[in-house]
Amino acid sequence: MTTTKQSLTVKEQAMKAQKASKLLAILSTEEKNEALRKVAARLETEYELILKANEVDLEEGRKKNFDDAFMDRLALSKDRVLEFAQGLRDVAELEDPNGIVKSQWTLDNGLDVQQVTVPLGVIGMIYEARPNVTVDATGLALKSGNAIVLKGGSSAIASNKAIVEVMRSALAETRISEDAIQFIDSTDREATQQLFTMKEHIDVLIPRGGESLINAVVDNATVPVLETGVGNCHIYIDKEADVEKALSILVNAKTDRPAVCNAAETVIVHQDWLQEHQEAFKNALAEHGIHAHADEYAQALIPGSDAATEEDWANEYLSRDIAVKTVSDVLEAIEHIEIYGTKHSEAIVTENQKNADTFMKLVDAAALYHNASTRFTDGGALGFGAEIGISTQKLHARGPMGLPALTTIKYMMTGTGQIR
Amino acid sequence: MTTTKQSLTVKEQAMKAQKASKLLAILSTEEKNEALRKVAARLETEYELILKANEVDLEEGRKKNFDDAFMDRLALSKDRVLEFAQGLRDVAELEDPNGIVKSQWTLDNGLDVQQVTVPLGVIGMIYEARPNVTVDATGLALKSGNAIVLKGGSSAIASNKAIVEVMRSALAETRISEDAIQFIDSTDREATQQLFTMKEHIDVLIPRGGESLINAVVDNATVPVLETGVGNCHIYIDKEADVEKALSILVNAKTDRPAVCNAAETVIVHQDWLQEHQEAFKNALAEHGIHAHADEYAQALIPGSDAATEEDWANEYLSRDIAVKTVSDVLEAIEHIEIYGTKHSEAIVTENQKNADTFMKLVDAAALYHNASTRFTDGGALGFGAEIGISTQKLHARGPMGLPALTTIKYMMTGTGQIR
Repeated sequence: MTTTKQSLTVKEQAMKAQKASKLLAILSTEEKNEALRKVAARLETEYELILKANEVDLEEGRKKNFDDAFMDRLALSKDRVLEFAQGLRDVAELEDPNGIVKSQWTLDNGLDVQQVTVPLGVIGMIYEARPNVTVDATGLALKSGNAIVLKGGSSAIASNKAIVEVMRSALAETRISEDAIQFIDSTDREATQQLFTMKEHIDVLIPRGGESLINAVVDNATVPVLETGVGNCHIYIDKEADVEKALSILVNAKTDRPAVCNAAETVIVHQDWLQEHQEAFKNALAEHGIHAHADEYAQALIPGSDAATEEDWANEYLSRDIAVKTVSDVLEAIEHIEIYGTKHSEAIVTENQKNADTFMKLVDAAALYHNASTRFTDGGALGFGAEIGISTQKLHARGPMGLPALTTIKYMMTGTGQIR
Repeated sequence: MTTTKQSLTVKEQAMKAQKASKLLAILSTEEKNEALRKVAARLETEYELILKANEVDLEEGRKKNFDDAFMDRLALSKDRVLEFAQGLRDVAELEDPNGIVKSQWTLDNGLDVQQVTVPLGVIGMIYEARPNVTVDATGLALKSGNAIVLKGGSSAIASNKAIVEVMRSALAETRISEDAIQFIDSTDREATQQLFTMKEHIDVLIPRGGESLINAVVDNATVPVLETGVGNCHIYIDKEADVEKALSILVNAKTDRPAVCNAAETVIVHQDWLQEHQEAFKNALAEHGIHAHADEYAQALIPGSDAATEEDWANEYLSRDIAVKTVSDVLEAIEHIEIYGTKHSEAIVTENQKNADTFMKLVDAAALYHNASTRFTDGGALGFGAEIGISTQKLHARGPMGLPALTTIKYMMTGTGQIR
């Protein structure tokens, strides 16, 4: 009985979102911006309500003995809620991605053809812990003229629910229907699964979270998916790499924020370079508390390193661990990336332009770097203003996705009776 | 045992295509064009071999009592094969969709960011009867730097196989590996299903054919899909429609080629207009052998029409049948399209600019027409040179898909040691 009731509810919510999306799609940029600012103001005035709900989640988390990093992601404060609100104000300032004429031409018969950007319709967002996604994703959805159905992780359900209630109540005073934000208030796995096949009412699913969440969506959804996130990123230090650049990029990519998807997980090092710069390399690791899982050649040169196993090459450590693979040329490095990479972000450090060109041409990934850290694969860092996720797939959007990723196009033809 | 053997084979073929795609992706435009011209020349000299194989398919078809239209699509002639070859020469003349810098900027820290178009990798093409798809899809794939795995319909298997053999033999004399064209030589349904989940080796699946084929791919594939084709297209004749335009657009959209996806299947007519132009309307239908399935209001005005049932509104007749729905305003027409349309091509005929704007803004479809026939939703008609299919989905590509739909982008970052 519960199942049937839940089934109706998720579908009904998706249908409400779809209905709301129709009017939302034709609102003016100023109407949408005004709504975003009202939602921001309401978050600012109602922050205590959100913090109170967050306390419920934190209490549950403590009971379940979640680790510190997890609790840290879950915890809100007045300042964090104010940051959410500022994020919405920032999104209001961004260019409206809709109504842009991507191309325009006239056929010989006089038919005018325009390709114009329009919203996707309804976005289904399936995500884990962090409550900030609830606000960020909603802001980007509304700004791009889309309704959103949110399905957050169970550990943050009280916080997410409170945030959504505040945002919806603010929409009541705007031209956007509050139904444009739908929150699936359930910790039931089945509720998520229902979203997977709701093609009639949801235009795209965006999963954000760990590998198992993403795979569950990709493997089971008939709704088109924008696949995000998993990054087994490599830094390749070529024979002719500048030592200072190589080590600062390596340390930055590994330690700046080890838990994010654009962090490096394996360093591939040219054997000759490692021989020559052995001291500097091992000191850099030691100084920054980076623990190496090295192949035989590298292990002999790095005291205290573990022997790498097959699993290490594929592992996204998300910690200060790193796999160290040695190679004898750039092609061997590329081959390793081809086998173990996740097509997210890959870097080469070298002063040899030819090797850099080979790497940039042959490696198949969303973002390739020559002499820079993989950490720049991020909508904020690249100047997009905000991002809905980082796509590791090839269709529709690849790499950091800003507002344009939430649009599609319409062909608009204007004639005077043309027939074929 | 057969299953196991087949399983290995399809996977091996996909892996061979993937390997071939790596070199193909970095060939110059001229190298790819030269290869296309060599394939064209070989089709021209080897046409007899292809016709002989086609005779086998035709013989099978006659045994199975396929209808005339089907046999017509299956049948090849010297002229048709020469047309295929000319098609490849035409594709060689098109602009290379790869290596285009879509945008470029420099961060404050000096990091240069470029978004560059690159091939998708390996395209899986799953299609029905017509052998021309074998040549057209291959030409577009190779030109856009992609390898292709072809799975054609069983009724054309001998023809398709012969065409592929000729094309592959021509590639042996070019810089493109013949492995870039893979043909799944099996009538086994399982062989097709294996392609659905081969994410590691196939970057996109493109189904072309009837609704059941397309749904089977969309529902079961974990490989991303470019959904094509089903078109339940409407012509809405508004109260202020010009009679001549309305009837010529209606007749063209219904009868020019009734079996294609951009043909009209329902005409929605404003009741006042139908009252006023009843004679002209029914004469146009009668003159062009169009049989109406009409709602109650329209049936009374169109002698000889059938009563429309619920099925008629959703039906893609692909014949000279048409459903006739009457409405009292443009919003009612839009609502009908929202329920029964397939987001392909929708037209309004009116001299009322406001109603036209409402229609163009509110109807959610790949192509919208004001005072023109839906028949223009076609890569050739729009001047794309060639098309791989017509997308009815919103992600990646919408509407007719030319060469750019077969590319993705790479972010290429060039730095001097930038870290975050």
